[in-house]
Amino acid sequence: MRNLTFVFCAALVLPLFAPALSSADLLDSAKDTFTALPDKPVFKKENAYNKTKIELGKMLFFETRLSKSNVFSCNSCHNLATGGVDQTSFSTGHKWATGGRNAPTVLNSSLQIAQFWDGRAKDVEAQAQGPILADVEMAATKELVLKRISSMPEYVALFKKAFPEQTEPLTYENIANAIGAFERTLLTPSRFDDFLKGDTKALDEKEKKGLALFMEIGCSNCHDGIGVGGGSYQPFGLLNQPKNLTDEGRYGVTKNEDDKYYFKVPLLRNIALTYPYFHDARTWNLKEAVRIMGWTQLDEKLTADQVSDIVSFLKSLTGRQPVVTIPILPPSRADTPQPDRN
Amino acid sequence: MRNLTFVFCAALVLPLFAPALSSADLLDSAKDTFTALPDKPVFKKENAYNKTKIELGKMLFFETRLSKSNVFSCNSCHNLATGGVDQTSFSTGHKWATGGRNAPTVLNSSLQIAQFWDGRAKDVEAQAQGPILADVEMAATKELVLKRISSMPEYVALFKKAFPEQTEPLTYENIANAIGAFERTLLTPSRFDDFLKGDTKALDEKEKKGLALFMEIGCSNCHDGIGVGGGSYQPFGLLNQPKNLTDEGRYGVTKNEDDKYYFKVPLLRNIALTYPYFHDARTWNLKEAVRIMGWTQLDEKLTADQVSDIVSFLKSLTGRQPVVTIPILPPSRADTPQPDRN
Repeated sequence: MRNLTFVFCAALVLPLFAPALSSADLLDSAKDTFTALPDKPVFKKENAYNKTKIELGKMLFFETRLSKSNVFSCNSCHNLATGGVDQTSFSTGHKWATGGRNAPTVLNSSLQIAQFWDGRAKDVEAQAQGPILADVEMAATKELVLKRISSMPEYVALFKKAFPEQTEPLTYENIANAIGAFERTLLTPSRFDDFLKGDTKALDEKEKKGLALFMEIGCSNCHDGIGVGGGSYQPFGLLNQPKNLTDEGRYGVTKNEDDKYYFKVPLLRNIALTYPYFHDARTWNLKEAVRIMGWTQLDEKLTADQVSDIVSFLKSLTGRQPVVTIPILPPSRADTPQPDRN
Repeated sequence: MRNLTFVFCAALVLPLFAPALSSADLLDSAKDTFTALPDKPVFKKENAYNKTKIELGKMLFFETRLSKSNVFSCNSCHNLATGGVDQTSFSTGHKWATGGRNAPTVLNSSLQIAQFWDGRAKDVEAQAQGPILADVEMAATKELVLKRISSMPEYVALFKKAFPEQTEPLTYENIANAIGAFERTLLTPSRFDDFLKGDTKALDEKEKKGLALFMEIGCSNCHDGIGVGGGSYQPFGLLNQPKNLTDEGRYGVTKNEDDKYYFKVPLLRNIALTYPYFHDARTWNLKEAVRIMGWTQLDEKLTADQVSDIVSFLKSLTGRQPVVTIPILPPSRADTPQPDRN
């Protein structure tokens, strides 16, 4: 209901927004709706920051030995060279299997209310436990992963340093905790953040027009906050039915009829880099994605000009990408379990 | 014949080496046999250095869109996080296929007389053209790769800057030239280089003992020069037949009967990181690899102590790994061919 109320409110105030807002007014509206990225990453209380943990997490993010075959790491599907995604519809995993949903970006992912399209993991730490064990992804077991990682004394020492308060720090959960802590550092401040912080010249006229429209027609009812999305679950097809929608989304997790076809609203930061779009990768074209959203969520048949303006704004969300140096991983030992491609 | 002569010479001078050499004498012998890495990478005359070319080559080295599926990049099999190899017997490629030989390290690879186990590519630039097109590796075509790369204006501009003397710089050959130029920068100076440059304390006593033995028994007849190998082709099974040898090696390239079971001598720099060993990955254990070599190439049944000393020396060849920042790759455009997993 929250959405519909917002949509109708947006419809009522729309006339007030036209003609063009002044930059100062636009900034005020934007500040009511969005939040700039913090200067520093925010860590989870139960998974506090320390430098070693971040370095360890980065190593594990690139660690192919977390996969049964030694072929895949977190970075395979959440590639930091390409916006934290793998530029495919459905990621390739063990034995050339594919998952059923498009891999979301790891960039800024910690800002969301939950992880995965259906929100089945509460945070990045919980999320990181999933793909390692999934048959169609890394296909490992907790036992295998622990045997591999604990066979390397370099890792054993790093876990001790990263989790100094724990007597047995090398656990499956802490592998995911370290990865999650690293992922929390992957923030990408953009020109839109500069704008939100008061630099009204950070966006050009077309981008501002797009931003104004984005708020006017109601995109920002759901794509709001710090992530420009990522803050709520919404039905795909709020006002009009999307074509060929089969995935029941969050219903699969909650078994609550009201959650059928609900998905976590994806964050739009770096959206120009994170094609293809939607949980089912139904389009590779950002303009088409905007048109689909306008129709299914807002009952708007957006004009080519409107789409173009909104896309210009969305491109201003492409942030400064994290500078990540490839970690040097410790060599396997005689008792490190070897890869298994089967 | 060259080998046998060396082996017999080595056998004759062996008594002179025992008891232990002084560090200064050992250094003199080592300097006659090996060469320290240069301070700067050496580029090919026809593929001269410029900064943009190296950056472009790095981007392409990490570019999954050089593979048909968008799943693999050069770094997938020549992983810079793990000694320039993928820590598997045979690399996984398109549709979960495997190649027939172990992927050699990319580190210091430009120092060799030729590329691939059978020497079928004359240098790293020529080598880089191979895997992109191989059915069991990246499975692309030249047309596909050119269409993908030339669809991105960022790449078009970089090719112009990287190959300023050429009117049509964006060619398949130049994709490989840029990758090759980047690969030439992947040198890993080690403690052994420090030793060769005169720091006799750079190796400890056991490592020096191993080095002396390595030269005495004749390992360094083939594993010599700047790469500690990589400088010649030799038969696997010079004096004794290896078990289960089926790959005919360089014969496949030259069709010359004399080349049967000849392979390019692998370089031993970073050998402790680049398991499993031999073209057919017959062992993951460096000690076992040394034992096999002692027997098949030198007719030596090495004792456990001898193997241990040689392995200590070999570990001193683990170099300072290149510090590589992950490149940020340009986004695909509407006309960039999409991945194809089939």
